[in-house]
Amino acid sequence: MLRQSQYELVIKTGNRAFYEITGQVEALVHQTGLRTGLATMHIQHTSASLLIQENADQEVRRDLERFFARLVPVGDPLFRHTAEGDDDMPAHIRTALTAVNLSIPIIDGNLALGTWQGIYLWEHRTQAHSRHVLVHLLGE
Amino acid sequence: MLRQSQYELVIKTGNRAFYEITGQVEALVHQTGLRTGLATMHIQHTSASLLIQENADQEVRRDLERFFARLVPVGDPLFRHTAEGDDDMPAHIRTALTAVNLSIPIIDGNLALGTWQGIYLWEHRTQAHSRHVLVHLLGE
Amino acid sequence: MLRQSQYELVIKTGNRAFYEITGQVEALVHQTGLRTGLATMHIQHTSASLLIQENADQEVRRDLERFFARLVPVGDPLFRHTAEGDDDMPAHIRTALTAVNLSIPIIDGNLALGTWQGIYLWEHRTQAHSRHVLVHLLGE
Repeated sequence: MLRQSQYELVIKTGNRAFYEITGQVEALVHQTGLRTGLATMHIQHTSASLLIQENADQEVRRDLERFFARLVPVGDPLFRHTAEGDDDMPAHIRTALTAVNLSIPIIDGNLALGTWQGIYLWEHRTQAHSRHVLVHLLGE
Repeated sequence: MLRQSQYELVIKTGNRAFYEITGQVEALVHQTGLRTGLATMHIQHTSASLLIQENADQEVRRDLERFFARLVPVGDPLFRHTAEGDDDMPAHIRTALTAVNLSIPIIDGNLALGTWQGIYLWEHRTQAHSRHVLVHLLGE
Repeated sequence: MLRQSQYELVIKTGNRAFYEITGQVEALVHQTGLRTGLATMHIQHTSASLLIQENADQEVRRDLERFFARLVPVGDPLFRHTAEGDDDMPAHIRTALTAVNLSIPIIDGNLALGTWQGIYLWEHRTQAHSRHVLVHLLGE
């Protein structure tokens, strides 16, 4: 019979960077004992994203950061919401351009990620934050 | 025991703008009486998005609009699909760059949004439309 | 009573293009006999996306391709991850800008897509690949 569990991960970030959370989400799946189902993640913020990206060459993530930094420049005179720092509005836009939810099937008791897929929290602010990620696990 | 409910919201839009639907989705969650679960939304269109963004300073949403209007210009000579108006192809691209689905856990009978998160329908066309958002609620 | 099923679709791609999978996903929904529920898709790659877009005028998809090709240029000197070809890093970025998951309600035994919505696998690499899409079906 189908059942569900919910968890909250708290991730301490230091600066604009990728923080891999694959292991933490997988540990929750193992804890539930679910063999088949669906894992859904939601980040409770508007200036950090959840992203599935390549977990092999870290240059991929550096190039992603370089591209997004150029696409959404800090200090762009277009932005009027500047009271929280000149990296705040770019962080909102980078979040809108990426994702705050992910849904990954559970197969044989594990997250059914592709060979090169890792789950990352992408911190878009330049200072340290405490980020909350909710994890909903469904299955049997 | 887990159960599900489905609903349809019809949102009348006036022009390119953000329309907050947090309260309408939350009212549906309350109507079901679900205490723990997952709310999934799907917008049945290809020229309007669902977006979670900051619900405090509305300048954030104005800056989002300014950024996307600059990134995907109306009247860009690159576009050949122009029969439905010069705002139509930019609307499709803005939708591809953002999201048509959202999934938010339900905790203690409420949508587990972060403090500053609101759910918005982002109308990308410049004229009025009637937009349909499906809401799937799962839980117990 | 709620139940779930899981499937894997293998899609052979030839080059950078859109491959419609609406019919294949719908066939799986019909196979389960579910009348009401939720279909969730996950693509197990970091250089191809899942996208819901207009299924009528194919010029829309050509314009999407033209826009993304200009936004994320192949051969951009910004990129250092070039060992797998100069189309690889653009493919990762295009994937980050779009989606790897989709969730669509099931109503009356069918995917509840809008009139103009089709589900596409968007291949971002310029050579042929074999792409795996997982489909999780939940409902009753």
